Amino acid sequence: MEIQKILVTSKLHHKLKTLIESFDIPKEFRFLPEDQVSKEDYEWADTFVGFRPTPNFEFGNIKWVHSLAAGVDSFMKLDWNKDLLLTRTIDVFGPKMSQYCLSYILQDAQLHEQFSNLQRERKWEFHIPKSLEEQKVVIYGTGEIGGYIGKTLSSLGMKVYGVSMSGEQKPYFEKVVTLHNAHTILDQTDWVIGVLPSTNETQSIINESTFMNLNGVGFINVGRGATVSDVDLLNALQSGNVRKAILDVFSIEPLPTSSELWEMPNVTITPHISAVTLPIDGVKCFVDTLSKLENGEAVKNKVVIDKGY
Amino acid sequence: MEIQKILVTSKLHHKLKTLIESFDIPKEFRFLPEDQVSKEDYEWADTFVGFRPTPNFEFGNIKWVHSLAAGVDSFMKLDWNKDLLLTRTIDVFGPKMSQYCLSYILQDAQLHEQFSNLQRERKWEFHIPKSLEEQKVVIYGTGEIGGYIGKTLSSLGMKVYGVSMSGEQKPYFEKVVTLHNAHTILDQTDWVIGVLPSTNETQSIINESTFMNLNGVGFINVGRGATVSDVDLLNALQSGNVRKAILDVFSIEPLPTSSELWEMPNVTITPHISAVTLPIDGVKCFVDTLSKLENGEAVKNKVVIDKGY
Repeated sequence: MEIQKILVTSKLHHKLKTLIESFDIPKEFRFLPEDQVSKEDYEWADTFVGFRPTPNFEFGNIKWVHSLAAGVDSFMKLDWNKDLLLTRTIDVFGPKMSQYCLSYILQDAQLHEQFSNLQRERKWEFHIPKSLEEQKVVIYGTGEIGGYIGKTLSSLGMKVYGVSMSGEQKPYFEKVVTLHNAHTILDQTDWVIGVLPSTNETQSIINESTFMNLNGVGFINVGRGATVSDVDLLNALQSGNVRKAILDVFSIEPLPTSSELWEMPNVTITPHISAVTLPIDGVKCFVDTLSKLENGEAVKNKVVIDKGY
Repeated sequence: MEIQKILVTSKLHHKLKTLIESFDIPKEFRFLPEDQVSKEDYEWADTFVGFRPTPNFEFGNIKWVHSLAAGVDSFMKLDWNKDLLLTRTIDVFGPKMSQYCLSYILQDAQLHEQFSNLQRERKWEFHIPKSLEEQKVVIYGTGEIGGYIGKTLSSLGMKVYGVSMSGEQKPYFEKVVTLHNAHTILDQTDWVIGVLPSTNETQSIINESTFMNLNGVGFINVGRGATVSDVDLLNALQSGNVRKAILDVFSIEPLPTSSELWEMPNVTITPHISAVTLPIDGVKCFVDTLSKLENGEAVKNKVVIDKGY
């Protein structure tokens, strides 16, 4: 593919300019804040780089769109034709999301809250932390990121199971099953982690029929809020099927101030930070993808529009 | 070595009896609580198994002492002669202490406290967690346990340095130096972890001359309280050389209610739980060591009395 004119839009356009220019790429670039992109820019460019489409996005002469984010749901709302290429930033989220998940699994296993309460009372009281080796985790989503989380948690001794669209077996997973067969591996799970993308098939795919198979689990969602039924999660938190929930993504973001989740003692809320693409991450992936496209090499970060990831 | 009569003393003697008997070892055993051991028991036994010496401990006819704990400072106070063998429980502490340390490093990196405070105010406020890949850790003690912690943290991307008596290089460590040369690797460290045993050479070895080289580090002590100068640590916490301390061991345990450490906002106190020997851990190691001794194999958990570990 021949690329010549690249439109980069973001409120971080200055930062992106500095980073991209450091790679000395012999192409023409325009760096603009999202609200200053014109129709003419879209006619000019053959490539669009950004975290999301601008409000006035149009394909114009664009052949290639590179998402600086891993999730491309905002791009999926566009009217794609099969000649257009969409790629997304990959390879940087696995370690970040693994560390996010691991931090909360260990917070729980090492009884941080309990010891913190005892310290406040100056109490030296013996409690034994739980070992990761005794714990089982089921990860919904076994792609690049879910696979990386599985690898990390299994390397620390956890027993890792997976749920995916295809049910294809993956390294580091004891067993992977399809979404339809998830119930067969949920018993005696200590943790459930959601890393699913938001697609037509995954809307509220984690719901009452999931939670009814669980007994006092920790639930972490770092995928997309829309993949979980809010009502069913609330019920599961109240019934105890879910013992605690750590939520980084929500069906509406920012989470409305009125949401009852904020005040639930067994819910931890973080503002969609489990995998922040730093400008340098997205730029590195863009540069790498550009080079592969120009050399006619396969790009593994190409989004299959029908699938949505 | 020929072993025939084994004295097992602990308040958990019932539990230990059940566990040991499950291995069907053709030896004579006595299982007693610590305060019910008599002079006659010590004359009878050729082997002593316990977490510590009983108050009335004497060597009698004992040839081999196996410590169910990893730390043997309580046994070091006995008057050892060179014909007596002391072994300690190993191989179970590495994973436990790694998970303890990792839990607090990740708690900090993932801004648990900050997000918890924001949640209380129903505030959706963006902050970016720190990656482990950006962080450097110096581990004091590179033996079995320190080596395991180093392996775990480096597998998650941290840059790991070590300090030990010998300064011998070890796998997974970028560099290991002697205690004397510790200052050469302390600059720009994010974390310092103490895993040193308590010996004559390690008393207060982590002191002002250590802390003066640090700038806003997190300090974790899972070794022994006596290896750190209490006064110097308090000063370093006040000056900011140490940004936060996570302490599982203390010069006096239980930590006295009067200690000012309890109330310091940048200190986390846990009651010596980072590596609890569960009865099954100690028993497995005892059974394994017994088998090696009877077969004349080398035992790597033999304590060198002069060194104290």
